[in-house]
Amino acid sequence: MTVSPHPIVSPPDVGGALAALRWRRPLVHCLTNDVVAAVTANALLAAGAAPVMAHAPEEAAVIAARAGALLVNIGTLTRDRVDVMAASAQAANAAGVPWAFDPVGVGASPFRQSAAASLASLHPAVVKGNAAEILTMATGQAAGRGVDSEDHDARAVQEAATALARSLACVVAVTGEVDFVTDGSASLAVHNGHALMGRITGSGCVAGALCAAFLGARIPPFEAATAALAAFGLAGERAAREAPGPGTFQVRLLDELAALTPEDLSAGARIA
Amino acid sequence: MTVSPHPIVSPPDVGGALAALRWRRPLVHCLTNDVVAAVTANALLAAGAAPVMAHAPEEAAVIAARAGALLVNIGTLTRDRVDVMAASAQAANAAGVPWAFDPVGVGASPFRQSAAASLASLHPAVVKGNAAEILTMATGQAAGRGVDSEDHDARAVQEAATALARSLACVVAVTGEVDFVTDGSASLAVHNGHALMGRITGSGCVAGALCAAFLGARIPPFEAATAALAAFGLAGERAAREAPGPGTFQVRLLDELAALTPEDLSAGARIA
Amino acid sequence: MTVSPHPIVSPPDVGGALAALRWRRPLVHCLTNDVVAAVTANALLAAGAAPVMAHAPEEAAVIAARAGALLVNIGTLTRDRVDVMAASAQAANAAGVPWAFDPVGVGASPFRQSAAASLASLHPAVVKGNAAEILTMATGQAAGRGVDSEDHDARAVQEAATALARSLACVVAVTGEVDFVTDGSASLAVHNGHALMGRITGSGCVAGALCAAFLGARIPPFEAATAALAAFGLAGERAAREAPGPGTFQVRLLDELAALTPEDLSAGARIA
Repeated sequence: MTVSPHPIVSPPDVGGALAALRWRRPLVHCLTNDVVAAVTANALLAAGAAPVMAHAPEEAAVIAARAGALLVNIGTLTRDRVDVMAASAQAANAAGVPWAFDPVGVGASPFRQSAAASLASLHPAVVKGNAAEILTMATGQAAGRGVDSEDHDARAVQEAATALARSLACVVAVTGEVDFVTDGSASLAVHNGHALMGRITGSGCVAGALCAAFLGARIPPFEAATAALAAFGLAGERAAREAPGPGTFQVRLLDELAALTPEDLSAGARIA
Repeated sequence: MTVSPHPIVSPPDVGGALAALRWRRPLVHCLTNDVVAAVTANALLAAGAAPVMAHAPEEAAVIAARAGALLVNIGTLTRDRVDVMAASAQAANAAGVPWAFDPVGVGASPFRQSAAASLASLHPAVVKGNAAEILTMATGQAAGRGVDSEDHDARAVQEAATALARSLACVVAVTGEVDFVTDGSASLAVHNGHALMGRITGSGCVAGALCAAFLGARIPPFEAATAALAAFGLAGERAAREAPGPGTFQVRLLDELAALTPEDLSAGARIA
Repeated sequence: MTVSPHPIVSPPDVGGALAALRWRRPLVHCLTNDVVAAVTANALLAAGAAPVMAHAPEEAAVIAARAGALLVNIGTLTRDRVDVMAASAQAANAAGVPWAFDPVGVGASPFRQSAAASLASLHPAVVKGNAAEILTMATGQAAGRGVDSEDHDARAVQEAATALARSLACVVAVTGEVDFVTDGSASLAVHNGHALMGRITGSGCVAGALCAAFLGARIPPFEAATAALAAFGLAGERAAREAPGPGTFQVRLLDELAALTPEDLSAGARIA
């Protein structure tokens, strides 16, 4: 699928997006992994969204269709959960509810790779991953050792992300020291963030949940992903100021996410 | 079923209840949702109880029958889990073990509403919920958007709670800005608490777990629910004093729950 | 099976073990319980390892075979999970990947006791438990009320641990006020730790995960268990200095685990 180029004239209004999130307080239905469920719910609450988590086949799709946005994250995936995720994504699509897809550790096994490919075909608004995950999604070749991002050539990652965005007709967001957001044509880099974010579990998963939260506030996908990564990165920078280590950092990150104002975000976002 | 009126002459001895909890250190078996399992276990430990969590059909009922109390919380419910909960509640009843029921997000789907109605019929000692959950349980009509409590008429909520308590012959506790506890005849209001409790995930679930903990310390249901809500609310007030946001607040809440003495609770409980 | 005696001439080089852990950053595959998954992942990251958690039958064994080490922890066990654990342990063995076994609450039910016996027969490198768990594993008689360690005769526990180590031909580590590590012949005591570690959920589970992390850094089992317990205990001592309660303590524990240097550990380990 070809996406016609439309260069960005001005950077997205991330402050305005945060104001919309706070105002709408969207219900974000999270089909996410067991490890990060609690921190994801707390981060969504801190940012101003209302999380709901329900994975029973009897209700997951029903709830997805009524939510403001849906998050699908494939950490700790099981066969049953894949079916629930697919049904929920389809219910979301049918109801006009946007959804974000986070192919966590997609290179970890053929099972996960196949499930991720199948879910990605169901028209997510945003796909978010680290470099290894996006490379794996774009090329079909497992990159990385499953969960963490190692050194990858930035140029190759950006090309893979752009190709993936075109192929899925969605926005692709790559997290890393510098985040990269593309719709297959326009792209930008978000320079916010802090190294401590890689020392706590679930920071990538929370970034994906925040993409869903901004989608739920009716922000278009490209702007939503940008606002999510800038807001989370800026909160991370502020949390790191006073943190002697990753335990305190994780706690302060929630404080800073809650304290962040639209004005703070407009002033502090470093988008190129 | 008719409950004869017995107006309260004096408020429950919540300090004495906390002393009993610390003394007995009851084993509290939690069948709770995935999102809040960790914070629930930590809050029970902080308050002075001993948590155990086991949901396999092969052992859940066995453990329930040996525990001091059982908690049944239907967040992230599945069909299999409903069966385990019912079997555990019945085993608890047969062994004389009291149990608390928390119909989390009961209005979120017909599946959850039907499961909640079925579990509620198994004679819990205490049913705890927010306004939307109690309204849904009492009327059979879904109220709220599933997980969070919105504005509801306080008078209507109290009437619904009273009717539910009579119909189930149990104590009903409604959490909110002011908590309401009723056995269908006598009732009281607990004014402890802080707005930050609504900004962290699982605070309602922890309140339910603390109801179970006080039941496990052999405190009668009406007094147990009152003591749980007053103790948790007072710990919340104290935690909020030094908290710049919800992350720090959640951490300090565990500190304050552990630091709370029976004397503190007697002096600080605001029960009307 | 008889293990020939080899008395320790000098205590293990725990500082060197920590340096190896930081250098190798092993992937530690955790099949652990729902309650402690997040704190386990965060503790492994803080200590310098890379956690991965995946329990689907389609991928768990595949990932175990590629990891640096495997952790098997039977809290919140289910029938399906036992099968996944057994397959993963066997895949780990076939690939030369060492694994640590944590029989959490093994005395809680016949189901758990039988599963634990079966898993323990699959050649773990280290079995870690509290006194009640190790007594139950060694004697086949349930000790304790399932989850927490009560008073047990220290001499009887050490004898049980030694017998268990001989019978399974592995290292057994018993956590408590003083930790005890034995390979069935040589043994030592680790005096690091703090009472607050018993007031947070998952501290025993994290200790087991750290045993796996040191195994993943290619430290032999006896030294790995010793280094894990000394490092975690020392971090706990430091975290307790500034902690007003268990909430802050848990956060600071992650900070201190991350801040701990090999030199700190060599100087601060109290091993007899």
